[in-house]
Amino acid sequence: MRGYTIDQLEVGQKASFSKTVTETDVYMFAGITGDVNPIHIDKEYAKNSIFKDRVAHGMLSAGFISAAIGVQLPGPGSIYSGQTLKFLAPVYIGDTVTATVEIIEIAAEKGRVILKTTCTNQDGKTVLDGEATIALR
Amino acid sequence: MRGYTIDQLEVGQKASFSKTVTETDVYMFAGITGDVNPIHIDKEYAKNSIFKDRVAHGMLSAGFISAAIGVQLPGPGSIYSGQTLKFLAPVYIGDTVTATVEIIEIAAEKGRVILKTTCTNQDGKTVLDGEATIALR
Amino acid sequence: MRGYTIDQLEVGQKASFSKTVTETDVYMFAGITGDVNPIHIDKEYAKNSIFKDRVAHGMLSAGFISAAIGVQLPGPGSIYSGQTLKFLAPVYIGDTVTATVEIIEIAAEKGRVILKTTCTNQDGKTVLDGEATIALR
Amino acid sequence: MRGYTIDQLEVGQKASFSKTVTETDVYMFAGITGDVNPIHIDKEYAKNSIFKDRVAHGMLSAGFISAAIGVQLPGPGSIYSGQTLKFLAPVYIGDTVTATVEIIEIAAEKGRVILKTTCTNQDGKTVLDGEATIALR
Repeated sequence: MRGYTIDQLEVGQKASFSKTVTETDVYMFAGITGDVNPIHIDKEYAKNSIFKDRVAHGMLSAGFISAAIGVQLPGPGSIYSGQTLKFLAPVYIGDTVTATVEIIEIAAEKGRVILKTTCTNQDGKTVLDGEATIALR
Repeated sequence: MRGYTIDQLEVGQKASFSKTVTETDVYMFAGITGDVNPIHIDKEYAKNSIFKDRVAHGMLSAGFISAAIGVQLPGPGSIYSGQTLKFLAPVYIGDTVTATVEIIEIAAEKGRVILKTTCTNQDGKTVLDGEATIALR
Repeated sequence: MRGYTIDQLEVGQKASFSKTVTETDVYMFAGITGDVNPIHIDKEYAKNSIFKDRVAHGMLSAGFISAAIGVQLPGPGSIYSGQTLKFLAPVYIGDTVTATVEIIEIAAEKGRVILKTTCTNQDGKTVLDGEATIALR
Repeated sequence: MRGYTIDQLEVGQKASFSKTVTETDVYMFAGITGDVNPIHIDKEYAKNSIFKDRVAHGMLSAGFISAAIGVQLPGPGSIYSGQTLKFLAPVYIGDTVTATVEIIEIAAEKGRVILKTTCTNQDGKTVLDGEATIALR
């Protein structure tokens, strides 16, 4: 498994990673991060919330962006410098999230690559967007 | 478990969540998110990398920020609207990360709260900073 | 927990191990092995595949064979030397897989035992077969 | 994430996946598969065994082969038809296993691809080898 070097990249290149989010994912994510907010793990609480049901952590979807970047584009060797995240819609247990990353800027002299990062659900609705900044030699 | 309402908050309020990051945390995070970049799970690869050892996923530290916000300040009822993240230094297996969140702006009429979010390691080094935007009634 | 010695075994002896495969099993297996092929973790992708739904990893069923051998027959003390595997039908989340192992050859002088290894689902359909070679004193 | 079609493949193409095997991996693999043979999870038992310490399940290394095939080469769309496995040396907790798959035969008219599959440890020692048979359109 080997990543791209900066000179192998071009604006417009894309990669994506998809996963159907399960209850297990959400519960384990809660356990690992300590984010045991009841909106993620308490069905009764969630029922009476604005979301009407348990939702996945926003940072889980952000993790799928990290997967698309770290495994595929630019892949191993990427150094994650920054990420902006706008959480636009809830992800429910059972939803399938597709994280898509697309190169929008390459500053080869600075060793820096900017990617547009978007997560959509199975209905094509954007649940998360933002930008990633990657340092790469 | 109940969170703050917006009128109970004031600028300068803080909360924090700390966790010693274990190999298990990193491996399970890799498994859940699909981010199996060798820098996280391959000791031999990591040895020859700029980091010299396996590092935790940046989004794991981001998850600790989510924990401080979602569990404590403002706590349950918060709607996570946005987060900016700058990854400033690596987190190694065995490091203890403290995520601190501090209210820096309250726009009560818009139901919006801004927090400065910082993760430091056991040596007080800042490994991650940024800002969170929370919607709250 | 103690296994058989080679002189306690005879051709025709059988053991089996059964487990209902859950979504959690498949997701954790994906996480541990790194096999995040979408056929296992992406419901939308799987829907349009030849299998029409997410399937368990073939190696998970192979793991049940390993369980029947390592825990029961010949049990602890067995050294797993080889295994052939033919994946004959998909295992879906919710299926109950029974791994059956049966001694078909004993070469006492070489300390070697051959077992026929078969996995069937709840409908009796064979999903996996092959042979295991075990070294045993 | 998209796999190769059979006409995009050629003999000699390779891919690999590496992971440092942790105690967590071994314990969770034991839990998921039911293979709780003490050689994997009982340090005291293992101390007095031929291996002198707890070893990873052979099928865990086989899972890394599945990862290299299912994620990379040929990748998504591959149908795993068969695998032969020879377990040649133990994998200990802390070892880094690299699963390498290499195409050795393509039978385009039958939609069948054969790969040589090898797992080595951090010292270059082969711990597992065999062949995979993949059906691919």
